[in-house]
Amino acid sequence: MKNELVVLGTGAAIPAHGRYLSSQFITLNDRYYLIDCGEGTQFQLSKYKLKISRVNEIFISHLHGDHFFGLFGLLSSLNLLGRTKNITIYSPPGLEAIINSCFIGSGLILRYTINFIEILPQDGYQLIFEDKMNKVYSFPLEHRIDTIGFRFEEQPKERNIIKEKLHPEIKLADIILLKKGVDVKDENGNVRFRASDFTKSAPDSRSFAYCSDTAYFPKLSDYVKGVDLLYHEATFHSSEQERAKTTCHSTALEAATIARDAEVGALLIGHFSSRYDTTKVLKEEAKSIFPLTFAAEEGMNIPIDKRIIKNLKD
Amino acid sequence: MKNELVVLGTGAAIPAHGRYLSSQFITLNDRYYLIDCGEGTQFQLSKYKLKISRVNEIFISHLHGDHFFGLFGLLSSLNLLGRTKNITIYSPPGLEAIINSCFIGSGLILRYTINFIEILPQDGYQLIFEDKMNKVYSFPLEHRIDTIGFRFEEQPKERNIIKEKLHPEIKLADIILLKKGVDVKDENGNVRFRASDFTKSAPDSRSFAYCSDTAYFPKLSDYVKGVDLLYHEATFHSSEQERAKTTCHSTALEAATIARDAEVGALLIGHFSSRYDTTKVLKEEAKSIFPLTFAAEEGMNIPIDKRIIKNLKD
Repeated sequence: MKNELVVLGTGAAIPAHGRYLSSQFITLNDRYYLIDCGEGTQFQLSKYKLKISRVNEIFISHLHGDHFFGLFGLLSSLNLLGRTKNITIYSPPGLEAIINSCFIGSGLILRYTINFIEILPQDGYQLIFEDKMNKVYSFPLEHRIDTIGFRFEEQPKERNIIKEKLHPEIKLADIILLKKGVDVKDENGNVRFRASDFTKSAPDSRSFAYCSDTAYFPKLSDYVKGVDLLYHEATFHSSEQERAKTTCHSTALEAATIARDAEVGALLIGHFSSRYDTTKVLKEEAKSIFPLTFAAEEGMNIPIDKRIIKNLKD
Repeated sequence: MKNELVVLGTGAAIPAHGRYLSSQFITLNDRYYLIDCGEGTQFQLSKYKLKISRVNEIFISHLHGDHFFGLFGLLSSLNLLGRTKNITIYSPPGLEAIINSCFIGSGLILRYTINFIEILPQDGYQLIFEDKMNKVYSFPLEHRIDTIGFRFEEQPKERNIIKEKLHPEIKLADIILLKKGVDVKDENGNVRFRASDFTKSAPDSRSFAYCSDTAYFPKLSDYVKGVDLLYHEATFHSSEQERAKTTCHSTALEAATIARDAEVGALLIGHFSSRYDTTKVLKEEAKSIFPLTFAAEEGMNIPIDKRIIKNLKD
């Protein structure tokens, strides 16, 4: 099973140098998610053969156009392609009115339902989605309008059975308990098989966090603590520190500082200002603080798995 | 001076087979216009190095998403690129509310003004724009929602002076009159120089018409009579005649029938259904009725000039 992020767009605000606008396709634990949906996202999904029909949840960080103007076309195409299954969109408040105004004005009646879930940044770090495979948390970012980040986590895994220690007296029902870390007791309540004797600790749950757009603020590293992969915007080089501050964006140095302080597995930077025709200086700057940094490119895929990422070449 | 149409998108409804959605960039008599603006139009303008900053008028045929969802990003980018000059958008009613809802909802305040001009199809054939270079007429099309076609025409040209006939008694002021077709008289009101003696008829004004989306209806050939270049949608092959009828689209055969009856210079077909991975059958069908037919491709440019078009190879 693949656990990966595919980059659909790396540009900030304006498409330039062949860059598309913010969007990422996430595969985690056999589930599929879209994060942000800049103009042209449906073209990119098609180019990289990613099945949007598999996506039931879309996460929109904020309502600046370069992060959601692709929704109109994407949602409209889903309808034309025959979708009848609900889709849920998580975003800061206001998106439903915009989408409805557009679709009503253009006479479009969808054959599927969109559930709009409004997330208030002031609600802080919170669980916004959960199924049997994954959980998604949102947290506030610091931008010019209401903006939220997302943290994706696999549900906790079961403990691994130590096969060599199994013997015929241990039944299937016992194994189910042991994998959950529960000791097996006899009818008198005495421990027959101790979980810690027959299992070893569960593999870590894979995790990924998405932070765009945001100014630097130290608390962000708590929200994204220890994720396998962190996507953090790096609109500017630190030579544009003042501009980053006034526009509520981050420099590559700041993105790397968050990655280092949060002790993440790897950092992916993106949302590059059109002033940079290549991202070399941004990547170099980030790597000076956090070596395992990748600069996003359209079509790039990165595993969401600390064990694999650490061996990747940037 | 170039007079040409550049095709930005040829697909219908859904992007497929690498096709973009409806949009065309028109250069006529030193003026620049955009017609329709499907998602991704700003990417295509950039790819083909077309300067949207030169455009002051945008014409939207109807409010189906594949013809206008690119406006959000395009108008937003114009703002980021520093535009302060007004822009005028001609469309059927409803666009202003959609654009405003989106921009207000996303906190975008433009530094330039958009003049929304609503065109009612029921007003029939009418002049909607005119400057010293060109005129634009709109006319009703037959589609599932309010839809209009556009006819672009150069302003009438002045008559050409026959240089061999000039002599020193003919002053500059006389020439100006003669070129306008006005005879030059002496103070007693007697004709000194007859316009028809010193000039030959003015060159034809170049013209272009855009018809998308529409079902076939015979009167359409009156609206586009004699244009140098006709763009007419050909969503389907005639083997899908019934589907064309129920969805209010045209077959390639019907597009060619309009071109033939209107005696146009050349026909450009486009807005191809995603069921056609190549447009060969559509072009062949149209050519059986109207030989000088071109099938639109992204990035293709075609001169708007009968004298040049007639020598082109399709």
